[in-house]
This record gives sequence, structure tokens and C-alpha cells, in this order.
Amino acid sequence: MELALGVDIGGTNTRVGAVTEDATVVSRHSFDTAVHRDADSFADALTASVHQVMATAENELGEIRWAGLGIGAPNANFHKGTIEAPPNLNFKGITPMVNLLSERIDLPFIAITNDANAAALGEKFYGAAKDVNNFIMVTLGTGLGSGYFVNGKLVYGHDGFAGELGHVTVVPGGRYCGYGRRGSLETYCSATGIVRTFFEMIALHNKPTLLDDVPVGRVTSKSIANAAAEGDFIATETFEFTGDLLGKALASFALTTSPEKFFLFGGPLNSGELILKPARSAYEANLIDPYKGKSTLEVSALPMGDAAILGAAALVRAEK
Amino acid sequence: MELALGVDIGGTNTRVGAVTEDATVVSRHSFDTAVHRDADSFADALTASVHQVMATAENELGEIRWAGLGIGAPNANFHKGTIEAPPNLNFKGITPMVNLLSERIDLPFIAITNDANAAALGEKFYGAAKDVNNFIMVTLGTGLGSGYFVNGKLVYGHDGFAGELGHVTVVPGGRYCGYGRRGSLETYCSATGIVRTFFEMIALHNKPTLLDDVPVGRVTSKSIANAAAEGDFIATETFEFTGDLLGKALASFALTTSPEKFFLFGGPLNSGELILKPARSAYEANLIDPYKGKSTLEVSALPMGDAAILGAAALVRAEK
Repeated sequence: MELALGVDIGGTNTRVGAVTEDATVVSRHSFDTAVHRDADSFADALTASVHQVMATAENELGEIRWAGLGIGAPNANFHKGTIEAPPNLNFKGITPMVNLLSERIDLPFIAITNDANAAALGEKFYGAAKDVNNFIMVTLGTGLGSGYFVNGKLVYGHDGFAGELGHVTVVPGGRYCGYGRRGSLETYCSATGIVRTFFEMIALHNKPTLLDDVPVGRVTSKSIANAAAEGDFIATETFEFTGDLLGKALASFALTTSPEKFFLFGGPLNSGELILKPARSAYEANLIDPYKGKSTLEVSALPMGDAAILGAAALVRAEK
Repeated sequence: MELALGVDIGGTNTRVGAVTEDATVVSRHSFDTAVHRDADSFADALTASVHQVMATAENELGEIRWAGLGIGAPNANFHKGTIEAPPNLNFKGITPMVNLLSERIDLPFIAITNDANAAALGEKFYGAAKDVNNFIMVTLGTGLGSGYFVNGKLVYGHDGFAGELGHVTVVPGGRYCGYGRRGSLETYCSATGIVRTFFEMIALHNKPTLLDDVPVGRVTSKSIANAAAEGDFIATETFEFTGDLLGKALASFALTTSPEKFFLFGGPLNSGELILKPARSAYEANLIDPYKGKSTLEVSALPMGDAAILGAAALVRAEK
């Protein structure tokens, strides 16, 4: 049988998995990303982890054809095989990650892409986008990432960094982001943005909330969703505002490549209708007439825990 | 020799031209669009015009291989060969323009696309984008149109209407557009938007301007550009504001498909640095770090008068 290897490089953990064509992760391993102070040390650890995952899978399943290895990482460049100045990783500057691994691991194909692009590939090959050729993937996490599919192909753009909708300005003069710019979508609609909105809603309404006993620095989008599910006013307003702003933004983004669907992924989607209802309503209301009724907002079908590994493995299926 | 026919259907005039592979329009004809009250009457007139252009070219050049006929029109749908509910044309509802012409004209290929998409095709086949595979065309006229090129192909999206950047919200709660939505880019950065900004600048500053003797309803973006060129404060502020807002918007749009270049086309570009300088400055300043220094704003190389015919003819080159 043929398997693909998927690697998810995150700020905290790096996770490796071996993936079947029907999206089962048959063996996996993870290690601490941050203990490695430089790219060479990290590449050594990743190599050991990959070899361990391969050995486990071969022990269990017998002989395996390894199609290749795909990596999803922040600020990764598919064209160059590099990770460029990631804010949350120790290796600074430009790291030639594909080269570092090709020197260490004997596989027919090794490639890297940005984590949100990997999610889009995962949706296409293992998720709900199998029959959808024009879609935009939007991942809501600490930040907000995205990936464009046009005519059945992931869009990399001229420099490999296409699909950074989290940085599109949606509120001119609004919240600050890590780049020092203002009002970008991710400062509002990521999991982090939801927490920021929660505090803005307290500022706006000055009402008590079920989270009044939670330390300020410990409020999470999940705890806000839980409070909203119990009818808390501030939390409910937070999700109304978030969904509405997200829907409006997606109605603008639809005007770029006219996707058939948006797929939304990430923790905030666990709140279900809390975010989806206002998002869908604002989306449809804000489409221009020729676009109305032709496209939809969908929840990703990727399993939350394995999505990043599946997406990285899908890079092998897409590009090999 | 092989020629392509290009048809530009505008609210006032419809223009037909025969185009060589090196972008020369060797014969042309135009007629009044608005006198035709229905699509059949219009199709008859267009057929006569096309036959006249073909006869003139054949008279001048001898035998010609006709590659086909491309049409650029507002609200045109390439996938369906239709024009759908165009606000400025008499034929309402959905007009099957390609079918109407195929019944009347014997050519190996007839197709239609939206006028801004045609402009993008014109830039690719006859203009400055010949060697550029990832770019976005932006046309500034009465409205603001756009066309996306990704990996050397025009993007139509799942429904044929991709590339409507004029309707992207850039100022939430801002100016009204024809769809009743607010703050879309074309209400600010089209030729019409420039006139609206001129009045906003008078409201803001309450200062005299060189255009004080021009009737309110007769102010044009061209007259504002002329006043700005003479140092008029209100007119200069108008172009500063327009260029700045355009540059910021394009810096957001770059985040979608990461184009190597934006090509800008239309009357307001005749003002040259008046709009380009603030636009380029705001563009570069508002790009996120991984995008800085990698892409540029360029002026279209299409000749203003023939651009629409060239773009429509390029549809034949692209799709035949």
C-alpha cells in the first residue's frame, strides 16, 4: 500500500503522521519544537521522528510504498522550500527546510507549504472539497489563515505566499496586528480576535458576564463560546459581532475568484451556529446581486486533531 | 494572415474591430447601442457591423483566416455566453448573446466575457503582461472593474463572474453604490468616485478651487486632474486621497493570489503621478513584510482608444 507522510510544524509541537489514501493516520509521533535552538538541530529531531513513524507503520502494515513527505509550517514557501522568518519559531531568517530534510531522509518527494495552504489541500484531498474546484479555505486559530483553490489547483502566486486573507484590512484604523498594521481580519475573527472582541463588548456595554471570575489573561474563545451557549449577553454579542464581520469580509473575498464554497476550520467553529448563523446571514446579505444564492459557507470536514497532518500529507498527493 | 475580431459592447456605442497578432486594428466600425430596444435587433445590427469590418479587412489585405470573435460587455458570463441584467443596456434579463451571434455569423469561435476580464486578456496578449503569469488588472472608469490572472490563465470562478474588486468594501459604512451596499472601492476610486471625493474635499476643507465656476453636475475626473496639475489644493487633495485609498486596497488584494503586478487602466491614469505616486507609496507601506518589495503597480500598456477591442479580440487568442 502507498502512504504519505505529513508533518505539522507548530510553535509548540511538531507532529508527524503516516496517512493512507482514505485519510487514516496509521502511525504518529510528536516532539517539542521550541527546545531546538537552530534549524539543524530541529532537522535532526524531525528526521528521527519521521524514521520512527515510518518504522512503526511498516511494523504494523508490512511493506509500504512511501509517496513522499509534505510539511505544513507558518511562513513556509512552497516554491523555495523554505520557512521565512516565522514569528513563533526559533530558527530566524530563511530556513531551507526541504533541503535540510532531503539531505537526511531518503524519500522520492519532499515539499513544504504554509499551514493554511496545507489545510486547503487537506480539505481537497481528504475533506469536504473533493468535488469542489473553486473554493477558499479559512482557518481560525491564534491567527487567521487562508488558501485559495482555483480550477482545482492551490494558488501559490508569483512568490509562493498567496492566500493571506488574515491580513486584509476590514476595519480601517482598527485593531493593531503583529505587523503594526491596523484593522486586519485576523485581529477580529481569529480565536485571539474573538477574545479581543469580548473585551470590546465589555467596554461597550459595561454589563456583568459569566466570565467575571476568570482572570483577564485567561479568557479564551472557547470559554466565551461556553458562556454564549448559556445565554451570557456579552459572550453572545461577541459571537454575533464576530460572525457578522466574518460574513461581510467573506462576501468581499468572494468577489476575487468567485469560489463555490468557503470552508471554515478551527476551534471557533466548534461554537457552531453561534458563529455560523450571523456569518451566513451577513455573507448572503452583503453579496452583490449577481453573486447571491450561488455560494455557501461550510464547516471543514477535516477532523480537528489530525487536520494539520492530513493537510501536509495532501501536499504529496497534490504535487508529486 | 490570421485575424481576430473584437467587439466592445458599451452603454453608448458598440465597437467592432479586426485585430492582427501584433495588436494592430486593421478595420473598425461602430454603431449606437441604445437605439436597439431588444437583443434580437441589437444582434442584427452587430452582425451587419461585423460583416462590414470583415469585408473591409478582406478588401485591404486579401484573404484572411478569421480565428473567431470575442466580445467584451458589462455583466457578461463567459461560461454561459450570456449578458445578465446589465444596468446600462436595454436588453434586460439574461441575453444569450453568443447563441444569438452564432445563429447569424459563420465563424469557428464566438465567446463573450466581462469587459474588465477582456481588459486583462488584452494586457496579457497585446499589452505589458505578456511575460507576467500572475497579475490583477484594474480598470478605472465609470465603475471599477478587475480581472485576475493566476498561473497564466484568466480566473472565471465557479460561476463565471470572478474579479469584481470594485464591489469590495473598503470603507465600512461609507458611500452608497448602485447595489445599495456601502463603502465599496468603486465608489471611491473609479472616475466617478474621484468626482465624489472632490465634493467631499470641498465639504472637508471649505476652500476655493479652480473649478468654482464649473456647474456641479459637470465636474469630471479629468477637470479635477487638470486643476490638480495647476496646483489647486482641493483637486490635489482629491488625487492624494484617491491614490492613497487605491494603494491601500491593492495592498489588501495582493494578499489574495499574490500577483507579481497590478496593471491599472483608464482615464484617471492619464493624471500620471497625481494618482500613481500616492498609490504606489500607500501600496508598499501597507503590504505585510513577506510581500514587501516583490510586486509593483504598473500602468496598462494598452492604447486607451483600442483597449476594449483588443481585449475582446484577445479572448479569441486565449480560449480558441
